Parts: sequence; structure tokens; C-alpha cells
Amino acid sequence: MTERRMTEPGVLEPKLIAIDAMGGDIGPKATVPGAAIALQRHPGLSFLLFGDQTLIGLELDKLPALKARATVRHTDLVVAMDAKPSQALRRGKGSSMWLALDAVKTKEADFAVSAGNTGALMALSRMLLKTVPGIDRPAIAAQWPTIRRPSIVLDVGANVGASARELCNFALMGTAMARALFGIIRPTVGLLNVGVEEVKGVEDVKTAHGWLKQAALSGATGFDYKGFVEGDQIGQGIVDVVVVEGFAGNIALKTAEGTAKQIGAYLKEAMTSSLRSKLGAVLARDGFLQLKDRMDPRRVNGGTFLGLDGIAIKSHGGTDPLGFASAIDVGYGMARSGIVQRLSADLAAFHATLDLIAIDPKA
Amino acid sequence: MTERRMTEPGVLEPKLIAIDAMGGDIGPKATVPGAAIALQRHPGLSFLLFGDQTLIGLELDKLPALKARATVRHTDLVVAMDAKPSQALRRGKGSSMWLALDAVKTKEADFAVSAGNTGALMALSRMLLKTVPGIDRPAIAAQWPTIRRPSIVLDVGANVGASARELCNFALMGTAMARALFGIIRPTVGLLNVGVEEVKGVEDVKTAHGWLKQAALSGATGFDYKGFVEGDQIGQGIVDVVVVEGFAGNIALKTAEGTAKQIGAYLKEAMTSSLRSKLGAVLARDGFLQLKDRMDPRRVNGGTFLGLDGIAIKSHGGTDPLGFASAIDVGYGMARSGIVQRLSADLAAFHATLDLIAIDPKA
Repeated sequence: MTERRMTEPGVLEPKLIAIDAMGGDIGPKATVPGAAIALQRHPGLSFLLFGDQTLIGLELDKLPALKARATVRHTDLVVAMDAKPSQALRRGKGSSMWLALDAVKTKEADFAVSAGNTGALMALSRMLLKTVPGIDRPAIAAQWPTIRRPSIVLDVGANVGASARELCNFALMGTAMARALFGIIRPTVGLLNVGVEEVKGVEDVKTAHGWLKQAALSGATGFDYKGFVEGDQIGQGIVDVVVVEGFAGNIALKTAEGTAKQIGAYLKEAMTSSLRSKLGAVLARDGFLQLKDRMDPRRVNGGTFLGLDGIAIKSHGGTDPLGFASAIDVGYGMARSGIVQRLSADLAAFHATLDLIAIDPKA
Repeated sequence: MTERRMTEPGVLEPKLIAIDAMGGDIGPKATVPGAAIALQRHPGLSFLLFGDQTLIGLELDKLPALKARATVRHTDLVVAMDAKPSQALRRGKGSSMWLALDAVKTKEADFAVSAGNTGALMALSRMLLKTVPGIDRPAIAAQWPTIRRPSIVLDVGANVGASARELCNFALMGTAMARALFGIIRPTVGLLNVGVEEVKGVEDVKTAHGWLKQAALSGATGFDYKGFVEGDQIGQGIVDVVVVEGFAGNIALKTAEGTAKQIGAYLKEAMTSSLRSKLGAVLARDGFLQLKDRMDPRRVNGGTFLGLDGIAIKSHGGTDPLGFASAIDVGYGMARSGIVQRLSADLAAFHATLDLIAIDPKA
């Protein structure tokens, strides 16, 4: 099946996308028009839409181009936005989320996109798709807007804590994603750390630092390792891939979102504080629109579970059609690059290198 | 000595401040004029200035009011900005930082302020001042600007990882600081966590959550416990005190700083992108100045080591006189509230409560 699709060496054009149409705060009202936007961007695509056929049908009727390329598969079951992962595993079978992932598992669809509950999507993805050999726990990778192009930051919350080897795996997985999404041949990688010297308790980070340095020098990794980076350097785009364990990574991501919102509120207040400021803001409207566009979270919507034997994209639950289309874009770029197949091969080579380093008496 | 200073019940007016005049990127050029600003704000203060008497003298000569209230204690020794904590401990004796802390230890000065190397200041403070009974490891508390008043966030990097009991101690120490700086009688406390449910590996955070909930209910804590908060809620000022272990806390703080800088760069670019935007920005100048003022990091300069048996304030190394004066303000507020003495008493009561909870079979 893969072979038939090849259009140029190494490129596998995605054809069929599985959509959990019910996920997210407004369900089909975001996911279905989102798919329509994705179809405009990638006219070769077709869609499997899983969920309530009546609600999906109402949206599809407004979008004839999409309707011609969409198949609706009805289910009454939906994983609730507040369901616990364990509940999703026990009772999620046959839900729109489950069916979308199952279509990836059976290789009917090239990838799945859901704006549903993150924990449930992680649990179901892991159960249905499994991880690639060498990876025990998937990571969630985020595209982080920087003053350059977005950087890939992982893990942003799939797991708390990470061993040195897991941090090394994150580096390799993030590299694969930077390559898939941005076409960077040899991405740069940094390890997030705190600046204070000789702090106790970051042994895993320090060990991973040594291993990554040696592995990168050996040339077996496909990335350039740039050493430690600090939180204030992420937004500068100082490296293409930022590696961190999931607790600190999630807190960093949320904190950046919160800070952006906070400054947005300050800015609004400042621009309405006097008549002169208001007039100035009207005059500078184009500038503010440019700023708004650059800070638009919909531009980089789409967290990815890396390390799975298949592609599952998490769209922000509160997203609109444009944001959902961005999430589909992420899956498209990943599927097209053959990331899963390449990751398996790269991991095998990388682990062989790590094993050599780890038994090196100098390590 | 303490008794003599009481001017109203519970208020201990600070009189003499120990300044590490050599710390920071520009040393006496920031610290000495910073002390002069502090003197304007608090006319009752006197200063001990530790460092190179020639360099300090050059600055003092420009500031006659300060000169009349300052005593210079000469030393040739300075802890380098890149010195490791262990080096500071071995070779820092007699340095300007050491002497400033020693003046607090001997109770000659009410508190010490340094813009020097954080790790060295932490190590020397801990060695010279020791911790209060019940605290093994001090925490660094930051004032975090929010859309309300600043919140206290700790630990932002003194240590990596924290046990449940240490997180509980942070809650109590942060509460004491919020009371000292902002006069909040019953501060609200939140525990920073990730949103994903059932994530493994945050046992300490979960245990602390249970203990804090019970302890707050028992009424023995002096704070209201609001439960978990996420990274994007810090900037909303949702609680007065945010508790987190030092690795994630440091990364969050740095990430927020980086995001603010990044958005500042976007804004500048947007406001110079066209002639109309430039004109608008000129017209809205007052608004932008207001924004700049609100985002000014000098307004909330001054990290504090909490849990020490004495007050040591860390000013940002790159600060200017105004920022250094803010750091002195932090120490002033803390000393005035008698935070160290109160913390010792409160900790004893709190630990008695925690011990009751921890042996509760339902805990």
C-alpha cells in the first residue's frame, strides 16, 4: 500500500485522514469545516468522519466539496472531555475517538486527528497503535512559536519525569519531527536545564547531556547537539528541538501561553487608556493585526504523540476550524515524511550508539 | 535589640542594611546609587557597604545624602559572577558577599542584599545564616507579576525536586512572604501541576495536595488552600502563592521572561512595519509607556531565600540602581514584618499539624 503511493523518493502522499468529528468543545462545528479547509490546502485528500451522522451531516451539507470526499461512519459513543484515561480505556471502545485511531491501526487511514480529551487520546493511541520498538512511553511534542520558525518542544506532558535514555529518545523523536515538518536536514537539539550550577537532582539530565554530546560527535544521530538551554531561550528559537521531561515541559508551555495572554491584556488596557492611545491604535491597526497573526495560537495547533507506531494528532480542544486545519497540516507533514518508519530505523541505530557510549568506561 | 526597635505591635523597623556593593554586572555603579534611592524611600535607614573602597567612594562622592548614612568596609575579595558554589564556600571568606551576610549573622545588620552570583549567595547564606528549625533546604521565592498584584512563586531554582513535606513548607514560607510584602492576612495558595489526569510520577505533588487541603481545613495554617493551578494561571494572579519544585519553577520563571521578551520583539517589529503603524505608535506613546512600565522587570526585582535564619535578598545581576532599590525594598518589607521569627513559630505549629495528618490512616 505504501509503495503504490510513492510520488517521489521518500515521500508518501497521505490520502485518507481519520477525523474524530466529535472531539473538542464545539465538535463537528470545528472539525468538519476544519477538514474542508484542509481539503483546500491538500486537494488529494479524502476523509473518514467518525461521530454522530446527523450533526456531521448538518455541517457537511454546507460544504459540498468536502462532502464529495468524505465518508461518515456513525457512532453514538463519544469520549467525554473530562473522562479519565482509565475510563476511556474501559468504556471508550466504539467511540468516535477509538474508531478514528482504529482506522490508523488497520492502515486504512494515514493518520488520525482529534480535538478530544488529551489523556484519553494518549491512552487509546498507546493501546491501539502501540509504540515503536525501543520506545516504552510516547511523548507529546508541541510546536513552540519562536522569533524564528517554531521549535519542537517535548515532552510537554505525556509523562512526568524521564530517565537519561528517555531524554535521549526525545531528542531523536523531536529531530524526526523537525525534519518532517520543516525539512531541516540536521536539526539542532538543546536540553532544557536550570542555570544554577551544581544543583542536585538533575542526574538524569546531566547523564543525558553526556550521552547526547558523545552520540552527536559520533555522527550517528542526524542532529547537532547544542548542550543545555534555559527557559528564556526557547522563544528565541535558539535550537530546533528542546528536550525536557513532561512535568516541567507542560508547565513551561502553559506558562508561555499564560504570559502571552497576560501581555495581550496589558496591551489592550494600555491602548485604551487615553483618547490619544486609542487613536494611535487605530492608526497602527495593520501593525496590531500583524502582531495578532504572529501570536495566533491556531497557527501552530497540533500536539503530536511521538513514539507511536502510527500518527495521532491532538488538536487543542477549544479550537476553531482554522486551528483544526492546522492540526491536520501537522499530521499531513508527518505522514508525508514517513516519520514512523524512519523513526524505527533511526532508533535502532541510535540505541546501538547509546549502548556503546553507556558501557564506555569514560561515560 | 529587637525590642528596642518596635514602633508598633509586630513591626520592627529595619535600621541598618548590609550591601554587597561589588555584586552584579556593574557593581558599585548599580548598588551604591540603588542604596541612595532606597534611602529616599526609607529615610531612617543606614548602610554598610562592603567592597572596594575606592570604587565605592567614587559613587558615594556623587551622593552626599547617602554618604552621610553609609559606612564603607573595604575588602579586595569579590566572588566572581561565574564562580561555582563550592568555590565560593572554599574561597569566598572575607569577600564582599561573605561580609555582608556575616553582618546579618552577627545581627549587626537587619538584612543583606547582593546582586552577585545566585549559587554562591545561596551556598554562603546557608552556611553563614543556617536554616530555621524544621527547614532543611531554603527555597528561592520570586515575585511574579500578574494582572493583579505580584504573586509569590517558589521554589524557582534553589533545589531540584521536592518531597511532599518540602512542598508544604514552601506553602507556609510563601504565605509568610505574601503577608510580609503585601499585607495579605490570609493569602491563597495553589500547587502547580500539569492538567493531564492520572499522570504517573507526581506522587509528591498529590500527597502535598492532600496534606495542604487537610491542614488548611484544620485552620492551623494561616492560608487558604485553593488546590492545583496550571502554568497559564500564574499570570492571572489566581492565587497569592504558587508552590512548585525548583526545576519546573525555574524553567517556568525563565520561560515567562523569555516569552515577554519575544512578544516585545514582535510588538516592536509590528509597530515599525509601516509608516502608518509608526505614526500610530507615536500617537499611542503614553499607552506604550504604561505597558513598558507594567512589564518593567525592575519593579519586582529581588528573589529571596526563604527558610534561612536571617534575610538575604538576591537582586538580578544585570540590574540598574532602580532595580537594586526594589531588591532593598523586598528586604525592608520582610525585615519589618519579623518574617524570620514568625516563620519559626508558624513552622512549629504547621509541622505539628502535618504530623497529625500524616499519621491519619485516611491520609
